[in-house]
Amino acid sequence: MEKKMASVQRFALLGSGFIGQVHAANLAAHPGISFDLVCDLDPTRAAQVAQQFGAQAGSVEQALRSDAIDAVLIATATPTHADLLEQAVRAGKAVYCEKPIDLSLARARDVVKRISPLSVPVTVGFNRRFDHSHQQLKARFKAGVIGQAELIQMVCRASELPPLSYLQSSGGQMRDQAIHFFDLLRWLTEDEVETVGAMGAALAMPEIKAFDVDTSVLIMRLRQGALAQLDNTRRTAYGYDERISIMGSEGMLASDSQAVRGATLWQGQNITQPGLYADWFSRVRETYYTHLDAFVRHINGEEVQGLPGLIDGLRAQAIAEAAQLSLTRGEFVHVEQI
Amino acid sequence: MEKKMASVQRFALLGSGFIGQVHAANLAAHPGISFDLVCDLDPTRAAQVAQQFGAQAGSVEQALRSDAIDAVLIATATPTHADLLEQAVRAGKAVYCEKPIDLSLARARDVVKRISPLSVPVTVGFNRRFDHSHQQLKARFKAGVIGQAELIQMVCRASELPPLSYLQSSGGQMRDQAIHFFDLLRWLTEDEVETVGAMGAALAMPEIKAFDVDTSVLIMRLRQGALAQLDNTRRTAYGYDERISIMGSEGMLASDSQAVRGATLWQGQNITQPGLYADWFSRVRETYYTHLDAFVRHINGEEVQGLPGLIDGLRAQAIAEAAQLSLTRGEFVHVEQI
Amino acid sequence: MEKKMASVQRFALLGSGFIGQVHAANLAAHPGISFDLVCDLDPTRAAQVAQQFGAQAGSVEQALRSDAIDAVLIATATPTHADLLEQAVRAGKAVYCEKPIDLSLARARDVVKRISPLSVPVTVGFNRRFDHSHQQLKARFKAGVIGQAELIQMVCRASELPPLSYLQSSGGQMRDQAIHFFDLLRWLTEDEVETVGAMGAALAMPEIKAFDVDTSVLIMRLRQGALAQLDNTRRTAYGYDERISIMGSEGMLASDSQAVRGATLWQGQNITQPGLYADWFSRVRETYYTHLDAFVRHINGEEVQGLPGLIDGLRAQAIAEAAQLSLTRGEFVHVEQI
Amino acid sequence: MEKKMASVQRFALLGSGFIGQVHAANLAAHPGISFDLVCDLDPTRAAQVAQQFGAQAGSVEQALRSDAIDAVLIATATPTHADLLEQAVRAGKAVYCEKPIDLSLARARDVVKRISPLSVPVTVGFNRRFDHSHQQLKARFKAGVIGQAELIQMVCRASELPPLSYLQSSGGQMRDQAIHFFDLLRWLTEDEVETVGAMGAALAMPEIKAFDVDTSVLIMRLRQGALAQLDNTRRTAYGYDERISIMGSEGMLASDSQAVRGATLWQGQNITQPGLYADWFSRVRETYYTHLDAFVRHINGEEVQGLPGLIDGLRAQAIAEAAQLSLTRGEFVHVEQI
Repeated sequence: MEKKMASVQRFALLGSGFIGQVHAANLAAHPGISFDLVCDLDPTRAAQVAQQFGAQAGSVEQALRSDAIDAVLIATATPTHADLLEQAVRAGKAVYCEKPIDLSLARARDVVKRISPLSVPVTVGFNRRFDHSHQQLKARFKAGVIGQAELIQMVCRASELPPLSYLQSSGGQMRDQAIHFFDLLRWLTEDEVETVGAMGAALAMPEIKAFDVDTSVLIMRLRQGALAQLDNTRRTAYGYDERISIMGSEGMLASDSQAVRGATLWQGQNITQPGLYADWFSRVRETYYTHLDAFVRHINGEEVQGLPGLIDGLRAQAIAEAAQLSLTRGEFVHVEQI
Repeated sequence: MEKKMASVQRFALLGSGFIGQVHAANLAAHPGISFDLVCDLDPTRAAQVAQQFGAQAGSVEQALRSDAIDAVLIATATPTHADLLEQAVRAGKAVYCEKPIDLSLARARDVVKRISPLSVPVTVGFNRRFDHSHQQLKARFKAGVIGQAELIQMVCRASELPPLSYLQSSGGQMRDQAIHFFDLLRWLTEDEVETVGAMGAALAMPEIKAFDVDTSVLIMRLRQGALAQLDNTRRTAYGYDERISIMGSEGMLASDSQAVRGATLWQGQNITQPGLYADWFSRVRETYYTHLDAFVRHINGEEVQGLPGLIDGLRAQAIAEAAQLSLTRGEFVHVEQI
Repeated sequence: MEKKMASVQRFALLGSGFIGQVHAANLAAHPGISFDLVCDLDPTRAAQVAQQFGAQAGSVEQALRSDAIDAVLIATATPTHADLLEQAVRAGKAVYCEKPIDLSLARARDVVKRISPLSVPVTVGFNRRFDHSHQQLKARFKAGVIGQAELIQMVCRASELPPLSYLQSSGGQMRDQAIHFFDLLRWLTEDEVETVGAMGAALAMPEIKAFDVDTSVLIMRLRQGALAQLDNTRRTAYGYDERISIMGSEGMLASDSQAVRGATLWQGQNITQPGLYADWFSRVRETYYTHLDAFVRHINGEEVQGLPGLIDGLRAQAIAEAAQLSLTRGEFVHVEQI
Repeated sequence: MEKKMASVQRFALLGSGFIGQVHAANLAAHPGISFDLVCDLDPTRAAQVAQQFGAQAGSVEQALRSDAIDAVLIATATPTHADLLEQAVRAGKAVYCEKPIDLSLARARDVVKRISPLSVPVTVGFNRRFDHSHQQLKARFKAGVIGQAELIQMVCRASELPPLSYLQSSGGQMRDQAIHFFDLLRWLTEDEVETVGAMGAALAMPEIKAFDVDTSVLIMRLRQGALAQLDNTRRTAYGYDERISIMGSEGMLASDSQAVRGATLWQGQNITQPGLYADWFSRVRETYYTHLDAFVRHINGEEVQGLPGLIDGLRAQAIAEAAQLSLTRGEFVHVEQI
């Protein structure tokens, strides 16, 4: 038996908007990746991004047909994810697909059903799993340091309101924002959510009241008995606040809010420290790279723990669907088990 | 116009068990109180407590009939509260009544209905309002420092399991433990809870599963639009954890977990600090005195902010009833507005 | 062999000014003490303090001659300490003597030389040894948790300027303020200071420049090889700051600055927490009681660790003398070994 | 008036050992730098580093003579700094010179005297000035937030012992390690050190006792009246500890020890947080880049605050010389004013 040599993966990037450019920088920086192609509906943008990172601009068709491309990273608009994912997998390309697979859980299930048997490496963009502190939390929890999970508390508070146009097509706070924490909850506890109760309100942006909430609180029951809670906001007046704690039978592990480094002022009756990261991106930026790196190692045959796959995409979405139903119906909702 | 002189209030203590003895020490220490009488079903215990604090032992009848008693502090078993409260008020005594007024909200309402018109000073034992940090939180919130309340997060985690016998007669985690935080929520926000959703489980004491939970998570919607969450446990493996934060439109105010003072160890890859107070009593001890002091000032005619009255007792109980119903029925429950 | 019964110690208080009244309250509160007599040059003040705490007013002679007095607490003006200490010991009274024994080290040595052989229980007022956090620091250091001491860092920053009149008779910052930390250093490390270097300036009160400093920094070498530093200020603009850390060969133990409890504000780019104790007394208040209690236990024959005795008084003073010399001469000074 | 275009600076790296490779990565990453040449006594190492970062290997002579090189970064062995610096400046190259200019202050002064008139951009490697937290500290201090500086406290504790061979040629803890903090002190306060007192010992490495110390404490008096202290260690058992605080007349500003991000464990009577950075390099890594960037902006004609120049190199060394003398002579030493 010989050890498989890690080969360089030749990537095409589909979609070069804000998040596409984040991925572009990581694709260019990763020593195990050759970043070769950028595809975008806007050919000027594709050309600019390609030039900046030493790649070529090209079409999606080119990316999927070319033998010189091993993998694609899908960072296009959400409604195109499912089709591109299916085409890429059928073309034999490894796929890093931004979440969600599709805003319609039914459609997402259908696609996954068709492509799962093809055994192509796929990961779904739950990058927050790769937050260094969350990873420590998980490792120590899994090592049994605090016994059985009993009570999980999660906070997901974005600091700045997204544009109204974004909210109108995002699928709502449950499907767009909370979904990362539904995934984290599953990943951390290695358990599944059974029931969810959610209340929400449009406090920061009353104009979205007809179709969405910007502030929400949720409680969940997990299959093995633990209880969980989560709150979400679309803006704070104190920076980006992301926190997770697991209280177990033998202690508590916490991955806390993260403040920026800086100077502290001791004056009068106060001690004033630097506040939290200004926005979500400052905090999670490096997880995109770590996730990409984990995916490349997976493609190269390495055993990688916790890489989010297609089934993870579906299951987090199923919780989001139940939460959305709970929000609108005002009742506890059972989560569809996938 | 002459300034009213604060007169010394002559107190009788009804009930001299654990919490009665806490009150006894405070009654003895307060300069505006003459601690004169101790009454208990167990005359030996009454005599001991009386002797320890320089009071006399006597009967409840004596306490209520004597012209030499101005006020009573009811710290007897819960089922006797309502009757003693009513008798004391009818006898013209000022009353500090341990919560709850009665485990039955209906009965509590009846008593309150009958005694409210008598305009005797009464306070109900929501002593946690007098926590110094919670008071700062409220003062600064009320001063408008963080704008409108949007999201309140409360944690109430007792560190050590109470005896099974206690739990069998406590009325359950909602009526016995969470009720303090229902009161704090109303007091802090000066708002009322409209709807509550609760999930719970008997994780630490499976033997109570048939009639109670020891771990619970709740979400609540307030009348003016804010959302709130609360979790409760009957034991942690890391000390007594009580925290409240209010996120408002312009910032967040937090009254955090409190660690004991001590030495910190910096060693290897860890910094180890002293943990939380070992139990709830270590943290809240001084609030009993501060509450008593506020009550004495109230009796003496001073304007006292936030003294919990009979209506506060009822309203917190109404939320507890709704939470209990939500726990058992598995649905969101509207809180009876009192 | 029978266990010796702890008897109640009958105390006289000599001196009832600010610190005398602090002691008075503790003498009255301690269950093993009968607080019987108050002596003061000002008989009106003596009478007031006596009345407040249920004692009698009387003369020093009365205190020293009476068979009904077992112990005296000397809290008079510094120049009277040495005489009163000697008289009291010769009268067979146990003595709690405020520091210093005398501003003149020579005179203090003489007194100690004469009274030491009399084997009467005496303690000198180095109450900061009884700070709960410092005690933890010492206990864990002594238990070997961080190996050998290598580098001790001490901060002693008073928050409010004392009156000029006080400074004119205090003996200077070394003898009056830093002396507590010379004692703490000896007590914590169980080692002796060999050499000291000090620099100081009158930055906050330029008017004291001719005879004292208000800001000073010191370095010290200990006999067993460790190095230490200390800084002292007479006022900060951020509260009372007292900290000690010991870096050892295997880690660091720290007894840190202590902030008051309260609410934290998260707003904009800052997190603002409650600051330090407003003044030294708020922080050290309880150590007077703990020290007194240790002394009573010592009188009653109990083995008490770390009770500061006469020799401790002399040795801390010897360091203060050397530090004062270093300040004025601008050179390193060897500490007289006593 | 036209705005001067920033041109790309073509750099040669002299020296490609550990610190040279750190610089190599930054030279390669900086968008305003073309990293063209690597010179090393070891041609194999030069070739490897050159290849890794897309540069060429070559000789120092080549670097200094070539018109295609604008600037050199000197990261060779300390004894070669002075000559290379002088040659490079005479050749008209901008120079980033690792500190010190020379271990002999006299020789360093001579070189500086000769090259200063040539007005070539030069910076000396006091990269810690570019620590983000120290920069905030300086900015807020300079803005007057805490009034006049009175007491500066600095801690410089390296976590891991360097090899004995390194220590034998480093010039000693004052010239090699403390010098960074002599520079920081000058830069932060914009003041000069007048007198220094130092004590030291070889506690961690007794074998260096004959020629150096590994643990030292220092006190300093500044010209405008402030006092300062500094401690240095060559290893801790708790990570890399670098801290600076300035106490001013109106408050204190602190740039504190920095812990790594991670999960916190709450268990029993302890709260255990992630400890400090494992080593100095983890903490200061990014300052090399920020310093280089500031230098490039300076070369391009931008007004750059706080860039350490030749005179800064000399003055920090003068303090180190005085500190070294104080260590060995056991007396306070005046700093030569340059």
